[in-house]
Amino acid sequence: MGIENRNRITRLQEEMKSRGVDMVIVYTADEHGSEYIDDRYKFREYLSGFTGSAGSLLVEKERAILWTDGRYFIQAAEELKDSGIELFKSGMPDVPTLTEYVKKAAEKAGASGRRLNIGTDLKLITVSSFNELEKTDEKAVSIKDMDLADVLWKERSAATANRIYSLPDDVAGKSVGDKLADLRKYMGKLNADSVLISALADVMWLFNIRGSDIMYSPVANSYAYVDMEKAVLFASGKSVDDGLRGQLREAGVEVREYDSLDDQLRWLKGMRILCDQDTMNAHVYGMLKNNELIDEPSFHYIRKHIKNETECKLAKDWHVKDGLALTKFIYRIKKLVGEGIDINEYEAAGMLDDLRKEIKGNRGLSFETISAYGSNGAIVHYSPAAEGSAPLKCEGFLLVDSGGQYEGATTDVTRTIALGELTEEMKRDYTSVLKGVLDLADAVFLEGVRGENLDILARRPIWERHLDYRHGTGHGVGAMLSVHEGPQAFRYKTAGDKQQPAMAEGMITSDEPGIYLEGKYGIRIENLLLCKSVETNEWGHFLGFDVLTLVPYEREAILPEMLTDRQRLLINEYHRTIFYLYSPRLDREEREWLAYVTAQI
Amino acid sequence: MGIENRNRITRLQEEMKSRGVDMVIVYTADEHGSEYIDDRYKFREYLSGFTGSAGSLLVEKERAILWTDGRYFIQAAEELKDSGIELFKSGMPDVPTLTEYVKKAAEKAGASGRRLNIGTDLKLITVSSFNELEKTDEKAVSIKDMDLADVLWKERSAATANRIYSLPDDVAGKSVGDKLADLRKYMGKLNADSVLISALADVMWLFNIRGSDIMYSPVANSYAYVDMEKAVLFASGKSVDDGLRGQLREAGVEVREYDSLDDQLRWLKGMRILCDQDTMNAHVYGMLKNNELIDEPSFHYIRKHIKNETECKLAKDWHVKDGLALTKFIYRIKKLVGEGIDINEYEAAGMLDDLRKEIKGNRGLSFETISAYGSNGAIVHYSPAAEGSAPLKCEGFLLVDSGGQYEGATTDVTRTIALGELTEEMKRDYTSVLKGVLDLADAVFLEGVRGENLDILARRPIWERHLDYRHGTGHGVGAMLSVHEGPQAFRYKTAGDKQQPAMAEGMITSDEPGIYLEGKYGIRIENLLLCKSVETNEWGHFLGFDVLTLVPYEREAILPEMLTDRQRLLINEYHRTIFYLYSPRLDREEREWLAYVTAQI
Repeated sequence: MGIENRNRITRLQEEMKSRGVDMVIVYTADEHGSEYIDDRYKFREYLSGFTGSAGSLLVEKERAILWTDGRYFIQAAEELKDSGIELFKSGMPDVPTLTEYVKKAAEKAGASGRRLNIGTDLKLITVSSFNELEKTDEKAVSIKDMDLADVLWKERSAATANRIYSLPDDVAGKSVGDKLADLRKYMGKLNADSVLISALADVMWLFNIRGSDIMYSPVANSYAYVDMEKAVLFASGKSVDDGLRGQLREAGVEVREYDSLDDQLRWLKGMRILCDQDTMNAHVYGMLKNNELIDEPSFHYIRKHIKNETECKLAKDWHVKDGLALTKFIYRIKKLVGEGIDINEYEAAGMLDDLRKEIKGNRGLSFETISAYGSNGAIVHYSPAAEGSAPLKCEGFLLVDSGGQYEGATTDVTRTIALGELTEEMKRDYTSVLKGVLDLADAVFLEGVRGENLDILARRPIWERHLDYRHGTGHGVGAMLSVHEGPQAFRYKTAGDKQQPAMAEGMITSDEPGIYLEGKYGIRIENLLLCKSVETNEWGHFLGFDVLTLVPYEREAILPEMLTDRQRLLINEYHRTIFYLYSPRLDREEREWLAYVTAQI
Repeated sequence: MGIENRNRITRLQEEMKSRGVDMVIVYTADEHGSEYIDDRYKFREYLSGFTGSAGSLLVEKERAILWTDGRYFIQAAEELKDSGIELFKSGMPDVPTLTEYVKKAAEKAGASGRRLNIGTDLKLITVSSFNELEKTDEKAVSIKDMDLADVLWKERSAATANRIYSLPDDVAGKSVGDKLADLRKYMGKLNADSVLISALADVMWLFNIRGSDIMYSPVANSYAYVDMEKAVLFASGKSVDDGLRGQLREAGVEVREYDSLDDQLRWLKGMRILCDQDTMNAHVYGMLKNNELIDEPSFHYIRKHIKNETECKLAKDWHVKDGLALTKFIYRIKKLVGEGIDINEYEAAGMLDDLRKEIKGNRGLSFETISAYGSNGAIVHYSPAAEGSAPLKCEGFLLVDSGGQYEGATTDVTRTIALGELTEEMKRDYTSVLKGVLDLADAVFLEGVRGENLDILARRPIWERHLDYRHGTGHGVGAMLSVHEGPQAFRYKTAGDKQQPAMAEGMITSDEPGIYLEGKYGIRIENLLLCKSVETNEWGHFLGFDVLTLVPYEREAILPEMLTDRQRLLINEYHRTIFYLYSPRLDREEREWLAYVTAQI
C-alpha cells in the first residue's frame, strides 16, 4: 500500500511541476463543510493511504506532510509507513500548524524574490480557513484553484445522487411555506436581497427533504438559494423525481441542476447576499466577490436547532423505540458473555446495529458505533476494526456509544455495561460519572443561561475527585439530521473568546461526561436532553430539561452511598419509567432481568 | 432645599447663555473613575439636591433632567421636589438614555443647520463614555471642556490632600522595585515607551502607598507615570512628607505636583503610551491625542488582583479579627433586642462600626454598613438613615452587610441575623441561600475556569425553587484597597459578550447569593473566598477556595433536612474552626452562646 501511495505522490509532484505550482494542499472536506463526507472527496486518503476522518496533506516538490490530531497518531504512523509522507502531529509541542508551515515557506520564497504558488481545490476549503491561509502574507502567496483529483484519480467515483424524499408536515412539524416566510422576514430586517445556503443539513431542513448521499447523515448534495420571489434547490436532476418536483413547486421551490450553481451566482451581481461563511466554500465566495455579503451564522435564520412541537414529540417517541433496542442489546450481550460465548467488540456492535435496523422507520445509524472493551474504552474515539477487535470477557466494562436515524429524529446514547466483576475503583468512577449526568439534567435555570454556565454541573463530581474528561460535555443533535449540530453545546471553554448562544426551549443537547483511565478502562454515560419551559414568574422564565434517552443505568456499578438523596430519587424515577414503558414489550426472561436492573436503590 | 436648587440651575443656565452652550452634562465621577468620590466632585448633588451615589444631570436652556437607577427612584423623586428638575428613571421602558437624549437633541439642532454645543468637565468622563457621546453624530455635536463647578460653586472644597503613607514590604509583600521591574518587562514586550496610570488603587498598589482622601477607600488623589528610566507619582506636595519622599526616591520614584500632570503629558509627544481607557478621563486623553496609545485593561500589568503570599496571609489574619468583631456584634444585638431594649437599624450599624474601629490596625470601614431590618432587607442597596430608621423587633431577620479596611487587607461580609421567631418560609429561604454559599466555596475546578462557569453553583439551590437574586454572585476584593475590585467576578451573564478572566491562585472574590422578597424580608450570606491551588496531576492543575470570612451562620434558620451530607459537614467544620479560634477571646457568657450557635448539626 505504502509504495503505491509513494507513486501517487510522485505523479502529483510531476503534475505540480507542469503547472508551475510549488505546493498543493489537500483537505479532508466536501463542498459544504460536512462532518462526514462522500467517498469522491476522499482524495487525501487516496493519495496518502491514511484512512482517518481528519487530516490535511501538503505536498511540495520534494516533500509530503500529513497533519492529523491525537485520535489518529498511532493509526496514521502505521498507514503512512513506506509512503514517504511525514506525519506532523497536530497540537504536539514544536509541531507547526499547516498555516505556520505555509507562512514559513512563503517567507523563504519571498526572501528569494518569488511568490509561493499554492494549488488547492477551493471548493474544499471554507472561507474562514481560506482567509487565514491567504492572510499569511498577501504578497508572498498566490492560491490557484485546481481540482487535481479529477485529473489524477482515475477511479474517482461520480457524485452520489441518491433519491431525495420529502418529509410530510406531520413529521417536519412546519411547512416549507412557513419556513420560507420566516426566512424572508429575517432577510427583510437585514435588507438582504437573497440568501445562499451551503450546509446540507440547512438545505434539508428548509425544504423539508432528506437524502442518503452521505453515510450517517440523511442529506443530499445540494445548495439552497432564496430571494424575495423565488426559492431554488440546486441538486442533481437524477435525485429528484417528478413527484417531489411537483411537491416542491407547489411549496414555491424550483429545482435546478447542482452543477448550474455557478451560472446562478453570476446572475446575482450587485445583490446583498446573506450567507454563513463558516460553511461556504472559497470557490463560491470567489464567485461572489462583487457582491455585498452579510455574513451571519446560519442558525440565526435556519432555526433547525429549535425543535418545534412535532419534532419534540417525535424525538420522545423514537427514543422509546431506540432505547428499547439498546436495552435488549444490553441484556443479550451480558447473557452471551456470561455464558462464555465467543464474541468480540466488532460483533457486539453489529448485534446492536441489527437491533436498530429492525425498528420500522429506522433510516440507518447516526454515526459509526463505538464498542470498546476494557482499556479500549479509554480511547475516546475508538471504533472496533472488523479484524482483530478485542474479545469480550466476563469482567470489566464495555463502553457502547451509538445512535440511529429515524423518520423524524436522531438518537445518540452511551452506556457503559458491566460484563462481570467490577473493582471498587470502577464503581466509584462509574458513580461519579453518573452523578454528573444526573446533576446536569436536573438543572433549573433562568433564560439567558448558556452552555458554559451549566457545564460544571456535569464536571463537578469528577473534578472534585481531581479527574477530568478531555472533551465537551455535550453537543446539539439534529432532528433526523446531523448527530452533531450547532450552535449550542455544554462546554466550559469556548472557542475564540466567543460566548455560546443561550439555552432555549426546544434545543436537544447531549449530556455525556466520562472518566478515562489509560490502559485500564473508560466510562461514559450519555443521555440526550430536551430543553423545556419550567415556569414563568416574577423572577423570570425558568427552563429545565427532559431526559429523552431511556436506557437503564448499570445497577451493579452504582455505589449508593456516593449519591445524594436527590440523585437516588432521580435514578429510581428514571428506572421506574423505563420498566413501565419496556416491560410490556419484552419476553418473560428479559422482563425479569429488567425488573432486577431497574429495582429501586 | 428644592427652591435653592432651582436657583442654582437658573444660575447655570445664565452661565451657559453667556458661553454660548446649549447643554451642560454633569456626571457623578472624579478624575480617576473611582467608585467613591471626594466631596469636591459632588457638583451634581450641589446643583440638583439629589444625594444618591449614581446619577447624571443634564441641563438645557429651559429644562433640566436627572438620570438615576432603580436603587434611587424613590429617594430622587423626594429630593428633586420643587427643584424643577425632571427625573428620568434609567432602565424603565420608554425612558431614553442620556446618550439617546443627546442624540435626539443633536438631530434637532442639525435639522435647523446648527451644531449642538455641549459643555462638560472632560476630567469627569472616561474615554469610553466620551467616545460614545461624541460618536452620537460627529458633525452635529461639539463638546467643550469646562469646569463650571469652579465658577458656580462658591463653597466648593479644595482637593483633599491628606498625608500619604507607605506600606512596609512585610505588608505589601513585594517591593516597589520588583513591581516596577515587572511592569517594565511587560512594557518591553509591547514596545511601550511609557505607561500612565489613572486608577487610584492602581497607583497605590504600584508604589506601596496608601492615603485617605476618599471615604471607604485608602487611596490618595494621584496619577502614576512610568517609563524605562523613571517613575513618577503625581500627588499634592502637601500630602507627601520628607520621609516618604526619600523612601520613594530610594525605590526610584520621583514625586511631582498633582496639578503638573498636564505639563508632563505635553512632554510625551510621539511616545507609545500604555494606558487603560476604562479609567482614563477624556481630558487626559485629549492631551495625548498625538500619541500612539496602547489601550489595555490595567490588570494585565498592575497585578493587584493576584494577591501575593504576604497579602494572602494578612487577609487570613485580619479576617479572624474582623470576624470576631462581627460575631460579638451578633451576640450583643440579639441580646439587646431579646431584652426589649430600644434600638434601630442605624444604631445597630453604629454599634458594629464601633466594634471594628476598636480593632488595632483598623483603617475605617470599606463601605457604608447596610443594616436592614425586616422588609428593608429586600432593598438590595439599603442604607439606614440616621433619622427614622426602622426599630428592631424580637422577630424576623436583620441583614447586615459590612466591612473594614485593615493594615494589609479589606473585608466584606454579610450575615442575616435572626432576632427572634422565624417562619418556615424564612428558614427554607435561609437554607437555600446557605446551600448556594457552601456549594460555590466547595468547588474544585481546572485552571482556565472563569466566573461564569462557577456562578450556577451558588444559584442552583435558589433557581431550583424558581427564585433568583438580581445581582452578581460575587466581586473581586482588594488588599487594603477597593472593596469592589476587578477583573474577576462570579456572574453568569457577562457584559458585552466578553469572557471574564480565568480564576487564579491568589484572587479574592466574594460569594454572596441571596433571596429578596419585596415587602417581606431579605436574606444574603456573604463570605470572601481566596482562590488556592489544590493539586496538579496528569489531568491538569486543580484550583479551589479557602473561605476567609469566619462568622457563624444562623443556626436557628437552618433546616438540616434540606442539606446534603457534604453541606452539613462543611457547616460543622466551619463552626468548629470558629469556636476554636474565638472561644479564647470571649467572656464566659459570649463563649456559652458561641458554643450553642456553633454546635454540630
